[in-house]
Amino acid sequence: MLIQFFFFFFFFCALTYTQGEETKSWKKLINIAISGAAGMISNHLLFKLASGEVFGPDQPIALKLLGSERSFEALEGVAMELEDSLFPLLREVSIGIDAYEVFQDADWALLIGAKPRGPGMERADLLDINGQIFAEQGKALNAVASRNVKVIVVGNPCNTNALICLKNAPDIPAKNFHALTRLDENRAKCQLALKAGVFYDKVSNVTIWGNHSTTQVPDFLNAKINGIPVKEVIKDTKWLEEEFTEMVQKRGGVLIKKWGRSSAASTAVSVVDAIRSLVTPTPEGDWISSGVYTAGNPYGIAEDIVFSMPCRSKGDGDYELVKDVIIDDYLRSRIKMTEAELLAEKRCVAHLTGEGIAVCDLPGDTMLPGEM
Amino acid sequence: MLIQFFFFFFFFCALTYTQGEETKSWKKLINIAISGAAGMISNHLLFKLASGEVFGPDQPIALKLLGSERSFEALEGVAMELEDSLFPLLREVSIGIDAYEVFQDADWALLIGAKPRGPGMERADLLDINGQIFAEQGKALNAVASRNVKVIVVGNPCNTNALICLKNAPDIPAKNFHALTRLDENRAKCQLALKAGVFYDKVSNVTIWGNHSTTQVPDFLNAKINGIPVKEVIKDTKWLEEEFTEMVQKRGGVLIKKWGRSSAASTAVSVVDAIRSLVTPTPEGDWISSGVYTAGNPYGIAEDIVFSMPCRSKGDGDYELVKDVIIDDYLRSRIKMTEAELLAEKRCVAHLTGEGIAVCDLPGDTMLPGEM
Repeated sequence: MLIQFFFFFFFFCALTYTQGEETKSWKKLINIAISGAAGMISNHLLFKLASGEVFGPDQPIALKLLGSERSFEALEGVAMELEDSLFPLLREVSIGIDAYEVFQDADWALLIGAKPRGPGMERADLLDINGQIFAEQGKALNAVASRNVKVIVVGNPCNTNALICLKNAPDIPAKNFHALTRLDENRAKCQLALKAGVFYDKVSNVTIWGNHSTTQVPDFLNAKINGIPVKEVIKDTKWLEEEFTEMVQKRGGVLIKKWGRSSAASTAVSVVDAIRSLVTPTPEGDWISSGVYTAGNPYGIAEDIVFSMPCRSKGDGDYELVKDVIIDDYLRSRIKMTEAELLAEKRCVAHLTGEGIAVCDLPGDTMLPGEM
Repeated sequence: MLIQFFFFFFFFCALTYTQGEETKSWKKLINIAISGAAGMISNHLLFKLASGEVFGPDQPIALKLLGSERSFEALEGVAMELEDSLFPLLREVSIGIDAYEVFQDADWALLIGAKPRGPGMERADLLDINGQIFAEQGKALNAVASRNVKVIVVGNPCNTNALICLKNAPDIPAKNFHALTRLDENRAKCQLALKAGVFYDKVSNVTIWGNHSTTQVPDFLNAKINGIPVKEVIKDTKWLEEEFTEMVQKRGGVLIKKWGRSSAASTAVSVVDAIRSLVTPTPEGDWISSGVYTAGNPYGIAEDIVFSMPCRSKGDGDYELVKDVIIDDYLRSRIKMTEAELLAEKRCVAHLTGEGIAVCDLPGDTMLPGEM
């Protein structure tokens, strides 16, 4: 059952609109599916998508919200609030609990919903429970979504969830699946800017390598401040290797302690950043971080996992990996650790990727605090 | 104690920035003070303010967040999330619990914080408790804010809170104080559009008259759809007088039941709409609703209260009342009821407006469900 809240597309498709003196054509409607739509991250994200700040002021959108039986009434409430907000670009809101209905013709799938870890739950259990959700959603995407759907996985453990999802969607290019590490990149930029006493926009070329867990590697070797390598601007190597790295890795946990809940608003902002970075050209010489499929990567990272790496986009929704990065011994050793973790996670979900029997030999617990 | 989180204004003031080929000058920084800054409405609103969607893409802003001792750690969390979002226009975030510090030089004060009604609390008690907060904040604004500060009161009961606030700020023009009824206006527009089967932007000239309570009067007499009076488009008078009116009045309550919490996101959207409507010219022939001081109003409404009425702005932050509205017997009788309620509320807070001893002869309980 899919409930349509409002549906004004038919009034506008192929029509024109007037802004000031100019008459412009509307672009073709974009279908955006969101799972976990009644949660706090989505509550921020949906209103950002509807306001036009993600896809632009001349791009009508349809929101397709996936919830659960438990959250269905809340979803109705969200849809009502979207109605009450009178967003001119929002042409359709529909809500449902069946991914095969909600993902129909999706151009973007933002997979936010995931089960949080309950008390006493082992990490292997969490990987299995969430993995099943993402296997199912991968199958649904494969069956009904646009053949070029772009998928951003936010629900944790997001790298391995993205891997499971793409393995269950063989008819969609594996390249189209992303695990969100943009919040980590943003946090790293913020800390480098504060340390150097510059505004954020002076910090560029920041890569988050690997898993969205505490093994993630914020790369200060290739990062730049005002176009100069960070290590020439911030000469405190101990700070970079220890404090900075840990501050980025553990920022979410500090926030939860202060704020009493996880960082929904800044996560939503980073999802906006991630989408925008795929639909607008990456500034010359810069790059963005995203957890993407490793097939054919130039960094020597194990194939067939989802690993955060530096990407550049022409603004067509697609990306290419950046080639001109330096990897020194320090960086290589850190990358190896986060790679080992992702390979272990992969073995642990083999039953969900169609690769045989799962073997769970996970290293120490490195879940991000927000995801426990 | 006022904690400054980041402060980049000095890098940019009076400098220029480059966008594409053009070089533009930054505008002067706008100071925005927000009370109840750790709450859910603020959590949406702050990120909207910071993203530039309210004051525009070339307008740097400073956010000054007022919280309580209890919410101070949460405020730190909010400030950290704002940092992590790398908003280029956000030049300063400071947090504090003393209104005399936080409101310093405020150009805008968005007063969102208010105590919700506890179990068994009488409405008179709520008026008194919240009234004291707004009396104190009025004094602080009077002492330290910009002499032309614009104040939008969101915390309920917002009309009477705004009255108390302006009475305690005699050095600031009473005209600068608003009680938010924009969410009610948006809801009314949405219902009229859905009933008529048109898109929202075809609905104009919608006034909410009176108190932001269930006595509010959504005006379908002066409202238009595609420039034609609503009553000529929707000929179902019974629906307009009964269902429509009640649907708008009780929308918040229905939402709380569905969603399990009050409508923070759409309230924040309506605050954005309210501010934008004061800083951009009102479209020719249209108007917006705001709860404003009644001195010298042309509708025969009692003087010296805060009453929602139709306003038009030149986009300079100021407004004028609309003169060409029709008031028939039905509308007049409804306006009288909401006026009587506001006069009773005023008598009930006389001790807070400097007008003697309070007499609480409140009519039946008409608090909006979200505010109980």
